[in-house]
Amino acid sequence: MTTISKESAIVTLINVFTVEPEKQKKLIDLLIQATEKTMRHLPGFISANIHRSIDGKQVVNYAQWRSRQDFEAMLKNPAAIPHMQEIASFTKFEPNLYEVVESIGV
Amino acid sequence: MTTISKESAIVTLINVFTVEPEKQKKLIDLLIQATEKTMRHLPGFISANIHRSIDGKQVVNYAQWRSRQDFEAMLKNPAAIPHMQEIASFTKFEPNLYEVVESIGV
Repeated sequence: MTTISKESAIVTLINVFTVEPEKQKKLIDLLIQATEKTMRHLPGFISANIHRSIDGKQVVNYAQWRSRQDFEAMLKNPAAIPHMQEIASFTKFEPNLYEVVESIGV
Repeated sequence: MTTISKESAIVTLINVFTVEPEKQKKLIDLLIQATEKTMRHLPGFISANIHRSIDGKQVVNYAQWRSRQDFEAMLKNPAAIPHMQEIASFTKFEPNLYEVVESIGV
């Protein structure tokens, strides 16, 4: 289980993937595989949370890293690059780094 | 504190706002105000989690609703519409509904 809190001094990667609906399942499987095999073992990884859009056209990875430096080191890691290249071959994606500024619950 | 779990039978709204960096703070303030004054009191609201991008150009609201029907009722609620109109006057945004398919932590 992942928690979202503005008290955590972490960075959040929100990566929105656009995909043909018939390939949404394939993308989800590859993201899970990349996370299980590689990402989760890298320094600073905290969590990855894969979301499928109900309309079938998007997938979001909501991921947490200890620091921006850890995230940027992952981007250059030789074990991570082939996963990202495979996914890039059939999707468009827009990753961005965030910090939580407010969390309001009932 | 918000939790992300694939076991929850809820819907997740991920709304990515694009904004001029000098208006990022204004957008965040309006989203917090809309949530505190209106959204959190509507049926089915679970949480809203406001994220600022480190590059200043985006804001993401990661929000949880009990059901798609509750979310769609909010969109038509006369108390919610003025908040959305004010925010739409100076941002672009792309809301989409999701379900969590996998959550992987260390």
